[in-house]
Amino acid sequence: MALHNDLLLRVLRGEKVERPPIWLMRQAGRILPEYRAVRERLSGFIELVQSPDLVAEVTLQPVDALDVDAAILFSDILVVPEAMGLPYEMVEARGPWFPKTIETMADVDSLISGDNAAERLGYVYDGIHKTLTALNQRVPLIGFSGAPFTLFCYMVEGKGSKTFSKAKKMLYTRPDIAHKLLQKITDTIIAYLRQKIKSGVNVVQIFDSWAGVLDSASYDRFSIPYLRQINEALKDSCPVILFPKGAWFSLQALHDIGSSGLGIDWNIDAAYARTITGPYKVLQGNLDPCVLYANEDTISQEANRMCNDFGPCHIANLGHGVYPDTPLENVKHFVNSVKRFRYS
Amino acid sequence: MALHNDLLLRVLRGEKVERPPIWLMRQAGRILPEYRAVRERLSGFIELVQSPDLVAEVTLQPVDALDVDAAILFSDILVVPEAMGLPYEMVEARGPWFPKTIETMADVDSLISGDNAAERLGYVYDGIHKTLTALNQRVPLIGFSGAPFTLFCYMVEGKGSKTFSKAKKMLYTRPDIAHKLLQKITDTIIAYLRQKIKSGVNVVQIFDSWAGVLDSASYDRFSIPYLRQINEALKDSCPVILFPKGAWFSLQALHDIGSSGLGIDWNIDAAYARTITGPYKVLQGNLDPCVLYANEDTISQEANRMCNDFGPCHIANLGHGVYPDTPLENVKHFVNSVKRFRYS
Repeated sequence: MALHNDLLLRVLRGEKVERPPIWLMRQAGRILPEYRAVRERLSGFIELVQSPDLVAEVTLQPVDALDVDAAILFSDILVVPEAMGLPYEMVEARGPWFPKTIETMADVDSLISGDNAAERLGYVYDGIHKTLTALNQRVPLIGFSGAPFTLFCYMVEGKGSKTFSKAKKMLYTRPDIAHKLLQKITDTIIAYLRQKIKSGVNVVQIFDSWAGVLDSASYDRFSIPYLRQINEALKDSCPVILFPKGAWFSLQALHDIGSSGLGIDWNIDAAYARTITGPYKVLQGNLDPCVLYANEDTISQEANRMCNDFGPCHIANLGHGVYPDTPLENVKHFVNSVKRFRYS
Repeated sequence: MALHNDLLLRVLRGEKVERPPIWLMRQAGRILPEYRAVRERLSGFIELVQSPDLVAEVTLQPVDALDVDAAILFSDILVVPEAMGLPYEMVEARGPWFPKTIETMADVDSLISGDNAAERLGYVYDGIHKTLTALNQRVPLIGFSGAPFTLFCYMVEGKGSKTFSKAKKMLYTRPDIAHKLLQKITDTIIAYLRQKIKSGVNVVQIFDSWAGVLDSASYDRFSIPYLRQINEALKDSCPVILFPKGAWFSLQALHDIGSSGLGIDWNIDAAYARTITGPYKVLQGNLDPCVLYANEDTISQEANRMCNDFGPCHIANLGHGVYPDTPLENVKHFVNSVKRFRYS
């Protein structure tokens, strides 16, 4: 059975298309009243992530409401540390919190990893099956994971941070522990994403959300090699999109990994990105989410400017997850502006 | 009377020197036990900022303890919004909080600005006089201000934020209000820094701490013109150092402002910066503060690498304020490593 709308996959295969496909990071989320209604019935975010029926429901919501060109499986990057033996709580208005963190080599040795960890995430694969049934081949389904460095940040720091100085301290004081932990996380991500692909996702995206806390030399040492392992392990079975937020300084190294797609944020303009990647790399992004607070004219102009600036080989998106207080009508206007765009 | 150590001023004048001067952002602060002792006697941070005798005491502490090449007047960037009529509180472990924020043109119109605001900051100028007496010409004294865009962020958002989406929303929805507010802030910064220079500071630094939340086009519109005004107004009376954290994407425009010095963070490596600024721009920075968690060998190596990579026309510093939990011995080792360095 073929997808009714396979625009995203065609772009990722390098085929010529009329306009960029569009989806939004965090499209399944608080911008939608029907999502907020589901959340209100539940005790918390983690309950939603672990309920396959609800995951399917909220994953479908933006496909119905916004008519985007892809669904992204509702989940959380922190299911991976949890499966490795490091459970977390989601503290309202503060974000994630890990009661236990990684400090020593013994802590790393005690973690579950690879297939043994991945098999503990059955609720995710169940969610994929339910989603695919409900989706009924309308659009491709994207599955995601946090990048090794970003998960490392949470597992060592224990919570969100502006600097992640505790996590980075380990890079400078115990690089041996850091590399061993990064490798175990990488093995788990690969096993996990293999299961997701086997369950039916069409594309995987790797979020390196905290890339921007590093310098180029550290990023090349503590993130790039692990991202490369993931891409090498998966690329023959599924297109991989890397999204290294804030890592403009390692764009060349990221490009050289050779993933099918590379997401960029609004700090990097299209012209700069193209000087490094050339015209044929599939780039994803990168409108500032705050543009969606503006009036319709500005949103259309910025959407058109973005599509023109990137040229073909582009997936339209924001440079970050859509902000929860964005007016829904503005989100729709953005999606429709991109859908009206045509490459000349 | 001449300064005993004027290395910083000589570099900023473009003179040839043997080694880079060194000071640290947040050198007067929690890394020093004598600072923590002062803080313990007080009810809060703002009390310290407003006490000229204590300001002089804590400003001198790192000159004694670390033997750095400059003192920086202990203060807070948020004294400027407060003088403009927008008071704030410092909430322990959460950061600044403004009970009232700027939302409308009427809110902007009601703000005090320029000389009228600057004259309300007498406690800062008193602090300078007391500091200069205590400093006794040992090293230059740096005074600072927040940049217009960064102060705008706090005055509209009302608190710290990872995204400053509320503040940025105004840029897209009401650029007229944003520009009027930015101009009033700029007028106040200029009047305030003129008073600081008149009171005796030898250098001023402008912290654009939240530059990195913008894209290049927005930064060129909402920050660069105001930074240029400040530099133009002050450059004939005092060297100006701009420190736009995260604004790598506008480095060319920042360089073109022509300030005496330009601070950069660790995301930007020296080689990249020099391709844009050339060899003669005085660059300040940029070691990752987390390097100071490492052992002495690593700290020395990284200090030497930094000094070599920038070459002459460089002020050694971190790429951000020193983190409060940095071991003091490591900070001293960093300072001494730079002081042993010689240009070949």
